[in-house]
Amino acid sequence: MTYCVAMRLDAGLLFASDSRTNAGVDHIATFRKMNVFEAPGERLIVLLSAGNLATTQSVISLLRQRLEHEGEHLLNRRSMYDVAELVGRTVKEIVARDANSQSLGQGVDFGGNFIVGGQIRGEEPRLFHVYAQGNFIEACEDTPYFQIGESKYGKPIIDRVINTGTSLKEAAKCTLISFDSTIRSNLSVGLPIDMLLYRAHSFAPAAPHRVTADDPYFNKLRRGWGEGLKRVFAKLPDEDWFA
Amino acid sequence: MTYCVAMRLDAGLLFASDSRTNAGVDHIATFRKMNVFEAPGERLIVLLSAGNLATTQSVISLLRQRLEHEGEHLLNRRSMYDVAELVGRTVKEIVARDANSQSLGQGVDFGGNFIVGGQIRGEEPRLFHVYAQGNFIEACEDTPYFQIGESKYGKPIIDRVINTGTSLKEAAKCTLISFDSTIRSNLSVGLPIDMLLYRAHSFAPAAPHRVTADDPYFNKLRRGWGEGLKRVFAKLPDEDWFA
Repeated sequence: MTYCVAMRLDAGLLFASDSRTNAGVDHIATFRKMNVFEAPGERLIVLLSAGNLATTQSVISLLRQRLEHEGEHLLNRRSMYDVAELVGRTVKEIVARDANSQSLGQGVDFGGNFIVGGQIRGEEPRLFHVYAQGNFIEACEDTPYFQIGESKYGKPIIDRVINTGTSLKEAAKCTLISFDSTIRSNLSVGLPIDMLLYRAHSFAPAAPHRVTADDPYFNKLRRGWGEGLKRVFAKLPDEDWFA
Repeated sequence: MTYCVAMRLDAGLLFASDSRTNAGVDHIATFRKMNVFEAPGERLIVLLSAGNLATTQSVISLLRQRLEHEGEHLLNRRSMYDVAELVGRTVKEIVARDANSQSLGQGVDFGGNFIVGGQIRGEEPRLFHVYAQGNFIEACEDTPYFQIGESKYGKPIIDRVINTGTSLKEAAKCTLISFDSTIRSNLSVGLPIDMLLYRAHSFAPAAPHRVTADDPYFNKLRRGWGEGLKRVFAKLPDEDWFA
């Protein structure tokens, strides 16, 4: 499985992904699920992926390979909407190729999901969720974030904390806590975490920060959060009808 | 969907269930998912159910109806293990009857899951998870709780707080917080919550307590927890590499 989160805040964009993939518990590996495409000064595009690794890798490879060719590619499409449409179209292309190459799909799920976000000069930062079917939705004021993969364990803290006014620092903190909850409860999501913060309208070169198991800040956060929760829990009142 | 939790602690047993059922978002109803079978002084058995409502209701109805008849039933089986086996056998009976009554299952999932717990004089309190296939597992020292239904949102807090030494009061508090997180993040789980606490070896008559939307204690807890989380979150340190 996988866990990826992205947020479109007034302050900018946040992207985070874990790096564990598994096909059964005896076939676990580490793969980067965050891919950055950029033309500094003009555009930044980030893709997060979940689902069938063969499909998502092929989509990324083709998108990257086609940057060199004529025709539409990620660095010449005019809007983030057009970028999301291109990613969706590429997903459909790969699934059609791989799922039909055998007489039977053999019960394999070839689907792959993408979160696609970024900014192109002339537009605000935008964020999309591209489904395995190639269609897509865009984040808005009311729902400023998307998750893909193993999303449920880490959703409550995001629902409590995040709105479009949240600062990038606060959002990063919340995201790391959301990952901590997910990693504790689900073996198929694992460190390291790749995280990228993009300040709106900066068009600066962006590099993901990698949070490993011995990252001192992440460990301070996990410990502080765990102890804080226990403290809050211990202070909550008891009730009479409890036996 | 549904959310049910049960715990087997040194102090006794805890059972909790929400009461929302839905077949699509336009067909939402309230059904009790907790059923108690008891012979005060001798045994207490509690069943929580999730899955196809027709299946789980039929299982409960048959188990109840058969209490009047000769043959094996919930109040004369010798151990909780035998009780779990009887529930599993009844699940298989209903699924076989309903799923095969049409030429096609029509894509319907007839499966139903049960949590079965209680105490029979001569045994310790025991807790089982009966799968839709009728087989079952028992809670142990290392894993003292089971969840069925929409379990992921509310799992992190249980993983952080619960072990077999937890008191019933603390466990009840933790369970209500786990329900709060689930209800906030998932529309298919809803109030009221039925909760039953059983002190080990008491064999006392047990009645579920119903927690409604205007329950003052539950509201105090939700507010205290939400505010406490925000306080802990606000106090956690920021880090330099955050943009």
